[in-house]
Amino acid sequence: MSFKTEIPDARQFPRYSGVCSFFRFPLSPQPRKVDWVLYGVPFDFGTSYRPGARFGCRSIREQSAYIKPYHLFYKEDLRERFSIVDGGDAPVAPYDLEKNLSLHEEFSSAWRAQDAKTFAIGGDHSISVGNMRATSKALGKKLACIHFDAHTDTVDRLWDNAYTHASPIRRGVEEGWLDPKKSVSIGIRGPVNSATELDWGRDQGLEYICIEDFREKGLDLLRAFKKKIGNDPVYLTFDIDCMDPVFAPGTGTPAIGGFTTAEIISALRVFKGIQLVAADMVEVAPGLDPTQVTSLLAAHLVFEILCL
Amino acid sequence: MSFKTEIPDARQFPRYSGVCSFFRFPLSPQPRKVDWVLYGVPFDFGTSYRPGARFGCRSIREQSAYIKPYHLFYKEDLRERFSIVDGGDAPVAPYDLEKNLSLHEEFSSAWRAQDAKTFAIGGDHSISVGNMRATSKALGKKLACIHFDAHTDTVDRLWDNAYTHASPIRRGVEEGWLDPKKSVSIGIRGPVNSATELDWGRDQGLEYICIEDFREKGLDLLRAFKKKIGNDPVYLTFDIDCMDPVFAPGTGTPAIGGFTTAEIISALRVFKGIQLVAADMVEVAPGLDPTQVTSLLAAHLVFEILCL
Amino acid sequence: MSFKTEIPDARQFPRYSGVCSFFRFPLSPQPRKVDWVLYGVPFDFGTSYRPGARFGCRSIREQSAYIKPYHLFYKEDLRERFSIVDGGDAPVAPYDLEKNLSLHEEFSSAWRAQDAKTFAIGGDHSISVGNMRATSKALGKKLACIHFDAHTDTVDRLWDNAYTHASPIRRGVEEGWLDPKKSVSIGIRGPVNSATELDWGRDQGLEYICIEDFREKGLDLLRAFKKKIGNDPVYLTFDIDCMDPVFAPGTGTPAIGGFTTAEIISALRVFKGIQLVAADMVEVAPGLDPTQVTSLLAAHLVFEILCL
Amino acid sequence: MSFKTEIPDARQFPRYSGVCSFFRFPLSPQPRKVDWVLYGVPFDFGTSYRPGARFGCRSIREQSAYIKPYHLFYKEDLRERFSIVDGGDAPVAPYDLEKNLSLHEEFSSAWRAQDAKTFAIGGDHSISVGNMRATSKALGKKLACIHFDAHTDTVDRLWDNAYTHASPIRRGVEEGWLDPKKSVSIGIRGPVNSATELDWGRDQGLEYICIEDFREKGLDLLRAFKKKIGNDPVYLTFDIDCMDPVFAPGTGTPAIGGFTTAEIISALRVFKGIQLVAADMVEVAPGLDPTQVTSLLAAHLVFEILCL
Amino acid sequence: MSFKTEIPDARQFPRYSGVCSFFRFPLSPQPRKVDWVLYGVPFDFGTSYRPGARFGCRSIREQSAYIKPYHLFYKEDLRERFSIVDGGDAPVAPYDLEKNLSLHEEFSSAWRAQDAKTFAIGGDHSISVGNMRATSKALGKKLACIHFDAHTDTVDRLWDNAYTHASPIRRGVEEGWLDPKKSVSIGIRGPVNSATELDWGRDQGLEYICIEDFREKGLDLLRAFKKKIGNDPVYLTFDIDCMDPVFAPGTGTPAIGGFTTAEIISALRVFKGIQLVAADMVEVAPGLDPTQVTSLLAAHLVFEILCL
Amino acid sequence: MSFKTEIPDARQFPRYSGVCSFFRFPLSPQPRKVDWVLYGVPFDFGTSYRPGARFGCRSIREQSAYIKPYHLFYKEDLRERFSIVDGGDAPVAPYDLEKNLSLHEEFSSAWRAQDAKTFAIGGDHSISVGNMRATSKALGKKLACIHFDAHTDTVDRLWDNAYTHASPIRRGVEEGWLDPKKSVSIGIRGPVNSATELDWGRDQGLEYICIEDFREKGLDLLRAFKKKIGNDPVYLTFDIDCMDPVFAPGTGTPAIGGFTTAEIISALRVFKGIQLVAADMVEVAPGLDPTQVTSLLAAHLVFEILCL
Repeated sequence: MSFKTEIPDARQFPRYSGVCSFFRFPLSPQPRKVDWVLYGVPFDFGTSYRPGARFGCRSIREQSAYIKPYHLFYKEDLRERFSIVDGGDAPVAPYDLEKNLSLHEEFSSAWRAQDAKTFAIGGDHSISVGNMRATSKALGKKLACIHFDAHTDTVDRLWDNAYTHASPIRRGVEEGWLDPKKSVSIGIRGPVNSATELDWGRDQGLEYICIEDFREKGLDLLRAFKKKIGNDPVYLTFDIDCMDPVFAPGTGTPAIGGFTTAEIISALRVFKGIQLVAADMVEVAPGLDPTQVTSLLAAHLVFEILCL
Repeated sequence: MSFKTEIPDARQFPRYSGVCSFFRFPLSPQPRKVDWVLYGVPFDFGTSYRPGARFGCRSIREQSAYIKPYHLFYKEDLRERFSIVDGGDAPVAPYDLEKNLSLHEEFSSAWRAQDAKTFAIGGDHSISVGNMRATSKALGKKLACIHFDAHTDTVDRLWDNAYTHASPIRRGVEEGWLDPKKSVSIGIRGPVNSATELDWGRDQGLEYICIEDFREKGLDLLRAFKKKIGNDPVYLTFDIDCMDPVFAPGTGTPAIGGFTTAEIISALRVFKGIQLVAADMVEVAPGLDPTQVTSLLAAHLVFEILCL
Repeated sequence: MSFKTEIPDARQFPRYSGVCSFFRFPLSPQPRKVDWVLYGVPFDFGTSYRPGARFGCRSIREQSAYIKPYHLFYKEDLRERFSIVDGGDAPVAPYDLEKNLSLHEEFSSAWRAQDAKTFAIGGDHSISVGNMRATSKALGKKLACIHFDAHTDTVDRLWDNAYTHASPIRRGVEEGWLDPKKSVSIGIRGPVNSATELDWGRDQGLEYICIEDFREKGLDLLRAFKKKIGNDPVYLTFDIDCMDPVFAPGTGTPAIGGFTTAEIISALRVFKGIQLVAADMVEVAPGLDPTQVTSLLAAHLVFEILCL
Repeated sequence: MSFKTEIPDARQFPRYSGVCSFFRFPLSPQPRKVDWVLYGVPFDFGTSYRPGARFGCRSIREQSAYIKPYHLFYKEDLRERFSIVDGGDAPVAPYDLEKNLSLHEEFSSAWRAQDAKTFAIGGDHSISVGNMRATSKALGKKLACIHFDAHTDTVDRLWDNAYTHASPIRRGVEEGWLDPKKSVSIGIRGPVNSATELDWGRDQGLEYICIEDFREKGLDLLRAFKKKIGNDPVYLTFDIDCMDPVFAPGTGTPAIGGFTTAEIISALRVFKGIQLVAADMVEVAPGLDPTQVTSLLAAHLVFEILCL
Repeated sequence: MSFKTEIPDARQFPRYSGVCSFFRFPLSPQPRKVDWVLYGVPFDFGTSYRPGARFGCRSIREQSAYIKPYHLFYKEDLRERFSIVDGGDAPVAPYDLEKNLSLHEEFSSAWRAQDAKTFAIGGDHSISVGNMRATSKALGKKLACIHFDAHTDTVDRLWDNAYTHASPIRRGVEEGWLDPKKSVSIGIRGPVNSATELDWGRDQGLEYICIEDFREKGLDLLRAFKKKIGNDPVYLTFDIDCMDPVFAPGTGTPAIGGFTTAEIISALRVFKGIQLVAADMVEVAPGLDPTQVTSLLAAHLVFEILCL
Repeated sequence: MSFKTEIPDARQFPRYSGVCSFFRFPLSPQPRKVDWVLYGVPFDFGTSYRPGARFGCRSIREQSAYIKPYHLFYKEDLRERFSIVDGGDAPVAPYDLEKNLSLHEEFSSAWRAQDAKTFAIGGDHSISVGNMRATSKALGKKLACIHFDAHTDTVDRLWDNAYTHASPIRRGVEEGWLDPKKSVSIGIRGPVNSATELDWGRDQGLEYICIEDFREKGLDLLRAFKKKIGNDPVYLTFDIDCMDPVFAPGTGTPAIGGFTTAEIISALRVFKGIQLVAADMVEVAPGLDPTQVTSLLAAHLVFEILCL
């Protein structure tokens, strides 16, 4: 790329000043040629329990102002490595889950047409299909998928609707954007509704790393999966509820016993070097978290994912 | 009615004990012959700003446990005057505003078939049309309407949808359940989107008592309206955002400068003696209110309304 | 008195510094000759709904640090007018309501023996009887009583106990410390448990100024009562739940429709010049109030009462 | 048992709808023949520091609505395995710790007379003795005891009272309901009041697994204890303050350095297969926890314990 | 002006979407020819009690997204009447109160050079002097001043510093930017530090309308002041702590007994038609307010002030 | 020392009663001969992001009331081992970072002149230099330093100021109070501003144990450092932001991925037996933490450090 990312120097301009863009990156309402675009999708009409993720992008923008650009462990400066912009928020279609996906896909595609990798920041998990579609279509192939979540997200229909936050992995596979044989769901745990919860996914070839598997066999399972996908283009979808509710209270459908921050950081770092082509961070509902540690964590993890 | 309402005696059984029903009234999952049924409608897919009203009925049940049965000002005991039950929650249709209204109407109608007056506790304002329909159909006539709200709720369509929380008054009039000539909206205030905000309503004959009118001419405007409706059957719909946000922080679309509790109580008491046939209390979003004073107020106002 | 009250000068020592005593007054663990002693009674085993008032004195100490000493309206400096100390907390007897009163009475009496007027800061309303007893015994006569409250506090027994927070006025009258003919309860409101709520008090000659009376007849009722008590020694007991819950969310048994701060200040100022001999401020439960405005208000009202 | 447990299907009826019973299990005000009864004991007059556990049962009911019935790790459906009901709340005796225990014992015994196993949900830890008594008497033998807690709960008397939340283990042993030689307290940690804290228990034969022991020797200590108790009937009492305060902020007497959720789940799973006959979950004080993660965790742990 | 203000249509684009600028007005990092520029001054090193106002501008931007453009009472559309932009945040100098004022003055002057009226959004009250200086210098004359506040802000020095948040009115007068004979401070109230609190101001000719004056003589005092200033250029400085703490909990130095929203709106509306040339809104500290009603109110009042 | 520390017996006097001193230790406004003095430094004008640490000492005093005196793991009673007092708060100089350090140094020196070891409780990290200076000067030698922190605190100047909370380690070394060759910073992690973050420290000989180092090599690195410093006098400075934000939400500059309580306790216990001569606990900002778990943790860690 021909430019690097300009960020106000925090030792001159306090991090609490200025209009909030993601990580204080430059705003770019129009698609342009960059390495990555981060954009919001303020939509949570796909939730099934506690709503509020529509305010996730606003809150992550705010908390990300405090995230600095240099990765001490990788010894890399994000500003030097990539050109990145904040693309603003995608248009949304309240009350209409399918139309919302179309608008999102269109928005994402416009950036992809500029060769930008697209990082969608939700919003609830229903939004992911829009970014999957745009990416897979643009690349002309199915994507490998790394899916962090407490839930499988392979419900067929919820209250008669096919595109809720309970189904993105199923729709992604069924519509042909994800390659289930190169997909893994990490952090799955119970209690669940029934004994058949994992059946559909396993039938498709999806790999499940339940939280108990993760705690028993350490990071080896992740390393094996990394090897399996090799240089394939990867979509990473991160549902913040994969975390233990204590580490991410601001989410709609919390599940006890999830990842700690130390665990999730070590898990993500296994994937250093994969061919990441698009990503999303979803299900941050800031109104449920009085300390905003969920948004701060989400911002931190977006930073970690960009550094992969 | 042949029975009076049994409530556990709080001087024997603490108000913080037991499963939470509205005002500790008896639960009645099946429709039966009573004076009033209170029921919840846990639905907030009709909101346009901050969601969370789906948890309103749960929270109002909880806070209402502390409301005692004797009205010191009217010198009446609610238990003696009416047979009342908690009918549980109406079935809802997440993601589908129209179907949700049909389910609600059906639920309300089943109680109406038992001659019960129906008090719906939301949920967002989109739910009101269900109770309006059931009541008007059962009575075979248009209803007078007393509407407390910061907003006119006469938007035609919001993001292409006709049945959101911005439209119940318009739909109620257009579908023929409300008589606009005998309807009043109290507490309306700005800022609003455009100069035409009140036009549609005024064209129909609806009366608007803006908050400035209320503060200037005291309660006379309300007394005049009461006289106009006489003995007509009345639907009372109470959107908690008619209150100043300080008195009701737990609501999705707050508007500065609304009613205080002293004002709203004196306003409601003007209507003592009207022919109330159905009512609702909507837009309580408890997750936005760390002290739950909104739900406590809503419970108190339901008590005041029942005593009318 | 031979000394005036020393307070750290806030323009030199910030109000947020130092160990928290009431209003930054000097600590005095031992009884001594002063005009007023303020002390805490951290006890809330007398509550019937939401507990937490045991932390009231701690929180009022904290918030009172910000209250300055000069009364702009009366044009008086509290430091110049009185010698005042913080006497620490009275010993308490958790689990035993009667023993707790005895300990409180003994503590209060020790100060009274030094001619100090005693201001007890609760704690729940059950504690008041201790200070009433000590004061009345020391003065050898019944006290007039000004009682701000949402509740009558004349319940005979609650769950078989005679000394809970629902009974201090009844016990004070029955035990002979208060003169019911010179007592008034201000701010009473419903809903209540039964039609007989006010009967016992009225039979004794107690005056009730319900909130509706207060709003209708302004301050004249208070002025009339002030005239009636003349120069009699007065006990003022202030239950913070006389306020509207919005103005005092941190209390255990909130009642909608109470005083605003403007109303309560104008009500208190009517009593300027009465012969105040002892007082209490009770039912502040700070854990129920995330902004601590209740404790700040309570501290402010203690200041107003001292200036009477 | 002749019936299985009916729960509303959450894929049809949202988990946020309806009157809140534990886990959405059927309500059963009267004792009946079931495998397990869950009931509340809304009582916290036994606390010594921060109160509020009287609201624990209400909050756990609310949060448990989101807990699904199928245990992904054990591959068991709670609905299929047991008939379970919510028995409502036991009667309580505010202000009187001993009478409260009698009422609780009586309530628990009535269910035990129907062969129901009894799971009491507090409330503070003082309530446990009621369920211990009922269970031990009905079975006619001393119970083994698994006790999760930060504290030993073997204080003889607190402020002259023998039945506070600091003494249930001591009273259980002394009164003959628990067999100290088959009892273990897990998660004990300091700081404590004195060097003699563990002496009484050790003299009785009680085993202590301090948090440092747990972290050093992993789960082996638990496995050894499980072996020791074999098929003996077991009472499990779970004080939520065994958790680190970050994982369970909503409790009255928090102690730094406790269990994480991952640790506690792995600890509980060691006991799969024991002969559990009664249990309790205590010390959840929801007012101290703005995110309600404590109640969600408590509900989850009740689910894990039922699945033992 | 040659353009009107473009705002995303909220009936098409939800108010919760997009990067947060004040009222969703266009961002303009560079000074340009407009009627009004709104900008932030994220600085709170001038506070004397509770800090946090540095986050005021961020929070007001966020809450202002919900404020609509049409003033229902004045029947005016802000978009039609003025060209307005969000100028971003002024540079600040943490740790250095005087340098911070210079930076602010310079920033404000740059906009004034484009004939833009300047509305500074704080930050604490120390920032006001920067905008006063820039405005008065550009206009070449002293400004009349309308000052809403609980405090006089005429302290000479606080802990040896002349430019803290306790002194802006004094500095403004002493440095010659404000005309004390045409200045009024509204909402002043006690308790204060000493009897001399109002002396300096009165000596200069400043008018004080204490809260008791306001409540007694209604709006007549304000009307008289309006008449006095006639067509003089006016600086309006609004310290949110003029409000009662219940209406504006998010502020550093709260004072009991202040304005209600109804009172403040009626007070502001008296000034309709004055020659407003610059303004500020200060002392919003959002971290102290869990419901963000303070920021919402502040945003609403900025809207009311712009409509003057 | 000639006396041991008297603490009110909590089994007689509840821990929630009385004026709050650190750990309920005796207050001693004047310097006197004791083993340790704990005192507050309520100052946070050195912060660069979120303020509020000026209230840290007040909140730690409050939460420490619940910390008991006997260390169950070390089997030691703090009261028996040391004479300890609460020295109140050091004077502070708001707005002036350098003067504030001088006042602090003077206060600390006065206690040191009585042979008291000094434990400063902040306040932000800028305050540490005051205690370092006083201690090093009194002992006449450079101090070894154990520094727990997420940040290196070796920034030269921040917004032109040399004595902010970003520089205490650098100033301590440059001014000659700390021996960099015997100093270690533990818990350092990114993201940081630039690649040179650790350069200055390493050039001086400072050791860095980043969080990744800590997790990989366990406690061996700490043991090696302990060996290196042997019997040298040690200054321990504890910035609470070394913790993961979930364990210490109440801090101004949180960094994801820090210590858990279990980790930090095991880390501190490595240092049992070092020659600790002074210490501080800084950056607790209680207003950012609705549950006050940060202050409780800080109090607990002060207890652990005193027991070293």
